[in-house]
Amino acid sequence: MKASELTERELIARIAKLLARQGENTILGAGEDDCAVLEIEGDDYLLITTDMLHRKTDFPIRMTGWQIGWMSVAVNLSDLASKGARPLGVVMAMGIPPDTEVGFIEEIVRGMDECAGKFGTQIIGGDTDSHDELTMVGTAFGLVRKELLIRRSGAKAGDIVCVTGNIGTAGAALIALDKEIPVSLEVLKALFEPFPRINEGMALAESRAVTSMMDISDGLALSLHDIGKASGTGFKIYESRLPVLPAVKKLLKGGELLKAVVYTGGDFELLVTVAPDKIEKARKTCPLTVIGEVVDEEFFIERGDGRVEELKALGYEHFGS
Amino acid sequence: MKASELTERELIARIAKLLARQGENTILGAGEDDCAVLEIEGDDYLLITTDMLHRKTDFPIRMTGWQIGWMSVAVNLSDLASKGARPLGVVMAMGIPPDTEVGFIEEIVRGMDECAGKFGTQIIGGDTDSHDELTMVGTAFGLVRKELLIRRSGAKAGDIVCVTGNIGTAGAALIALDKEIPVSLEVLKALFEPFPRINEGMALAESRAVTSMMDISDGLALSLHDIGKASGTGFKIYESRLPVLPAVKKLLKGGELLKAVVYTGGDFELLVTVAPDKIEKARKTCPLTVIGEVVDEEFFIERGDGRVEELKALGYEHFGS
Repeated sequence: MKASELTERELIARIAKLLARQGENTILGAGEDDCAVLEIEGDDYLLITTDMLHRKTDFPIRMTGWQIGWMSVAVNLSDLASKGARPLGVVMAMGIPPDTEVGFIEEIVRGMDECAGKFGTQIIGGDTDSHDELTMVGTAFGLVRKELLIRRSGAKAGDIVCVTGNIGTAGAALIALDKEIPVSLEVLKALFEPFPRINEGMALAESRAVTSMMDISDGLALSLHDIGKASGTGFKIYESRLPVLPAVKKLLKGGELLKAVVYTGGDFELLVTVAPDKIEKARKTCPLTVIGEVVDEEFFIERGDGRVEELKALGYEHFGS
Repeated sequence: MKASELTERELIARIAKLLARQGENTILGAGEDDCAVLEIEGDDYLLITTDMLHRKTDFPIRMTGWQIGWMSVAVNLSDLASKGARPLGVVMAMGIPPDTEVGFIEEIVRGMDECAGKFGTQIIGGDTDSHDELTMVGTAFGLVRKELLIRRSGAKAGDIVCVTGNIGTAGAALIALDKEIPVSLEVLKALFEPFPRINEGMALAESRAVTSMMDISDGLALSLHDIGKASGTGFKIYESRLPVLPAVKKLLKGGELLKAVVYTGGDFELLVTVAPDKIEKARKTCPLTVIGEVVDEEFFIERGDGRVEELKALGYEHFGS
């Protein structure tokens, strides 16, 4: 069997099964959550996450070097954000085609540095390698107070489902680029310069109102399924409540709009479930939009016209079709 | 100017210059040492290192999947070893060609897992990505007691220079593969299954006898220059004292032997400088071979016939020629 015959999640599950049982200082290990979580001395857990991006899949030719650098850091910080962590540092391994202009590499580095600095952290190391395809692998690590760690597995039926920011913007940009439809800078920027919700993640963790949290970089539907699987719950969301930019609604209609908003990745917003009696507390920490509720089982979306459909586990995956 | 017109060290220096000044919790930052070193709560520093390997440069076609996995973890652990750290965990981002057999990926994962386990640690997370070229990017992190951290910059004139194990074995294997000369499994294994000196690194740090330490994965000469640059010293080493396997001496002669032993990378031994009055203490911790001494300035090698030559800053670099 070839790798392409598995979905990314199936492949990760196979890999995780082959690894030695996690040691006692591993709070969350391979394949379990957005970050690995380790017990260390003191009041904090250490969180680590790594992400591989490369030219063909992640850096459309319209992206500037600065945007490539920014995105390579941002996607890793977003995983820290989803655990409410404060970033401690980022290392970046860069695979660089030998004929790349040094000026372009420097632009990438400036983007990396500015993204890290924007969220109170730094590039503290890395590796450079000659590679046929531009390949950027960031690893970010951070700290979270032990009693404030939010897992994927904490959602309970009856909890309220919220997201930060707007969703579907990056998905719309992807579809527009793919179909070569003209698209506004505002929409493109959501795809090329994702803004990790570090501050929102930390504030939501501090609020103690949140029962589970993750980012929706692989798409809303797939992320809801990930939380549902880890928590043993289902979800019902309402299309009419999803926060979507007017520019996106103008660009796409019907099934294509639904695909961009629900079944495509690239938005780095946080998806959170909140205990019903704590929703006001959560909303005080940062702007949130309520999009649905946690249910006992199965996954539903109520469409704009009132029809209730199955919410499929589809989204952004590197393998499979 | 293209990336290929710079050496890897020149490129890293340019990158490091563009990054924001390291924050006060960064003890050692980008480009300064084998690992980044961060201040955290408690008695230990947190160390992080990342390494990108890929098919074309690092995984000759004769390597098994298991060896690819082992090596991808080992090279990162070796950087921790060179700072005397105990490993805390490893994350691995895997870029996998879609037509790769799942069985081969599983072999890689077994090699990763066994290497981590051999040195008392674990694979605690990672990422999988579809990539044209098999690309493995590991990030390892570990801890070292604050008072035991050994930097590259601590060597002093008069210190004794030692290495663990044998050197030139991996270099000989590389030359043999390149020239298609038959080569023994013992020699090939040094290249394909590097053995990070984690235990030796921890013991040497504990001994407090060592003034500087790094691994020689980029070759002995380049590593001596790295320590010399960081410490403001020079080095003199003696070809006749270099610990070289009989099989390597049989395989290569003269300039080619010197190239394998001094100017080629791939051995993951530790290079240490030791205060002269502490050499016996250091030797009690693990087998060491004395190969030379730290001098005030410049880099020399005394050849087997007594001639003294300049030790050039040549070795394994990804860019440049």
